[in-house]
Amino acid sequence: MSEYRIALDVMGGDFAPEATLQGALDALSAWPELHLTLVGPEALLREKCKSKAWTSDLKQRVSFAHASMIVDFNDHPMVILKEKKDSSIRVAAQLVREGACDGMVSLGHTGAAMVASTLVIGKLEGVDRPGLASPMPNTKSTPTILIEVGASIDSRPEHLVCFGIMGSIYAEQIFGINRPTVGVMSIGEEEMKGTEVTLKAAELMRSSKLNFKGNAEGRDVWNGKFDVIVCDGYIGNVLLKSAEGTAKLLKNGIKEALTSNLLARLGSLLIMKPLRSFFKKLDYKEFGGLPLLGIQGVSIIGHGSSDARAVKNAIRAAMENIKYELPRRIAEGIAKMGSL
Amino acid sequence: MSEYRIALDVMGGDFAPEATLQGALDALSAWPELHLTLVGPEALLREKCKSKAWTSDLKQRVSFAHASMIVDFNDHPMVILKEKKDSSIRVAAQLVREGACDGMVSLGHTGAAMVASTLVIGKLEGVDRPGLASPMPNTKSTPTILIEVGASIDSRPEHLVCFGIMGSIYAEQIFGINRPTVGVMSIGEEEMKGTEVTLKAAELMRSSKLNFKGNAEGRDVWNGKFDVIVCDGYIGNVLLKSAEGTAKLLKNGIKEALTSNLLARLGSLLIMKPLRSFFKKLDYKEFGGLPLLGIQGVSIIGHGSSDARAVKNAIRAAMENIKYELPRRIAEGIAKMGSL
Repeated sequence: MSEYRIALDVMGGDFAPEATLQGALDALSAWPELHLTLVGPEALLREKCKSKAWTSDLKQRVSFAHASMIVDFNDHPMVILKEKKDSSIRVAAQLVREGACDGMVSLGHTGAAMVASTLVIGKLEGVDRPGLASPMPNTKSTPTILIEVGASIDSRPEHLVCFGIMGSIYAEQIFGINRPTVGVMSIGEEEMKGTEVTLKAAELMRSSKLNFKGNAEGRDVWNGKFDVIVCDGYIGNVLLKSAEGTAKLLKNGIKEALTSNLLARLGSLLIMKPLRSFFKKLDYKEFGGLPLLGIQGVSIIGHGSSDARAVKNAIRAAMENIKYELPRRIAEGIAKMGSL
Repeated sequence: MSEYRIALDVMGGDFAPEATLQGALDALSAWPELHLTLVGPEALLREKCKSKAWTSDLKQRVSFAHASMIVDFNDHPMVILKEKKDSSIRVAAQLVREGACDGMVSLGHTGAAMVASTLVIGKLEGVDRPGLASPMPNTKSTPTILIEVGASIDSRPEHLVCFGIMGSIYAEQIFGINRPTVGVMSIGEEEMKGTEVTLKAAELMRSSKLNFKGNAEGRDVWNGKFDVIVCDGYIGNVLLKSAEGTAKLLKNGIKEALTSNLLARLGSLLIMKPLRSFFKKLDYKEFGGLPLLGIQGVSIIGHGSSDARAVKNAIRAAMENIKYELPRRIAEGIAKMGSL
């Protein structure tokens, strides 16, 4: 019997369907408790799965769900509600809504994934705005959860508090952090510092049951000072993309420095391996995708440029969220903290 | 005759007055056209400047301005207006206001520096909110100017437009960029994406005389796609501090990777020099301090942890701003673009 029933939007992402199918294959091979529903043009998918790699053994844990349409990069997210009702991303969400699958994985069109998750799967009671959570690396053994990183913008203080609750439960369940500390992203650690929204959010969190520890600053995303940092999706999105940019600039600069002269080139040969393993730690493809918290099911949203490894890891993320029953626990947490 | 008359708040920063005085000494030695007014407890400063390093030759280009008080890290910025009227940071600003100096350099208490610059030196006509501009490194020969990074928060669309004008003039004058391209920080490059404030700001800039090129994303701070990126001070501040955190994490991680085994350690010895020169490029101490644009004089605000090198470079930044008459040019630019 399969424990994890996951719908995969095979047609999403820059390298679909090759990368998604390869990722699916790798995931099925790695985890015998996984059952995948491949969503997309069924004839095409069945054809692709005729290759030798797809053994009959693996295929026993595969279903197909037909979807005739694909959401395009340029499409407005709302297109899946009317014009593209039969798009793979929406059909995947429908499977979760109907209970045929426990979770979905999609890559590529973040906006459409958000709409599918929020409006088709549906929000949890007490959650006005679902939040995309991003585990950020630091030098500790557990990451800092940055929530929210792009599902919504112009958040009100109550939304930030809800992000705090959902982020805490995520940190607790997935990373085993006991009573996670929570901070609100501000411009200084002093209590009086902040925008109208963050000041009010801090006030609300101070009198909540959260383990609230005050204002966080930009640098705290990377030093492990807080287990959870809440912010508006605009801030989180800018921060995440900026960090990608910083890492890229540093990586290139280091690469250049390493090949600047003969001795340096020799040196770089000797240190290539440990360096590579370090950069792997910072690679988003290792996480695969980010969970959208606050909906009635599991939804992992991956990067458009996901390769097979990222797809496989996104499936693993979905399995973990299902394993720890994130949606049920978040619903309980919200109910316990009081509706916001 | 001295060309550049700069007031230095000797008492600001974590390592004052030693680091500030050493920085002052180094700057005076390097640039014969510099005249410094050292602001702080006069007896103490005169005593410190009795050491051999302060030759009578250098001292000819030094004045002293007495200030009996120091703004403390914990003080509210507004303290300089009433309780601490005789603080070094306020006295320095007063010298600029009265025309005795062309610019000031302060380190440490950013909030107090902002109040001193804005309320004592005074805002330019047509500028509602001055903006702190930060040149960000990329792989091009000229940086991207991120404005604003912490002088104010909860900006309205008109403020962002004003940041765009001031940032453009700064990019043009200091970095020689012809008709700088301007972007507004958003969550995606598509025109429809953004917060209420950024969407309205984009609309205003599109119909302005600025060389506006649409939405910027977090990663564009580091890839040179825009010459100027405008954002609210909250975003800019979080982004800047986050980047500091990312760089620190990467640096430590790389250091660790480099010493993980004997071969790697040998390799790291060979590449130390080029690596070090690369990290220097990203070091904020190289810039020394950031200019607050939109006031009736030059004000460079440095990091609290500035060492002598950072102080010297902050003085150099002030000299450049004076050389290119930034305040006058910004006033003209604002007038030309229409009051906002």
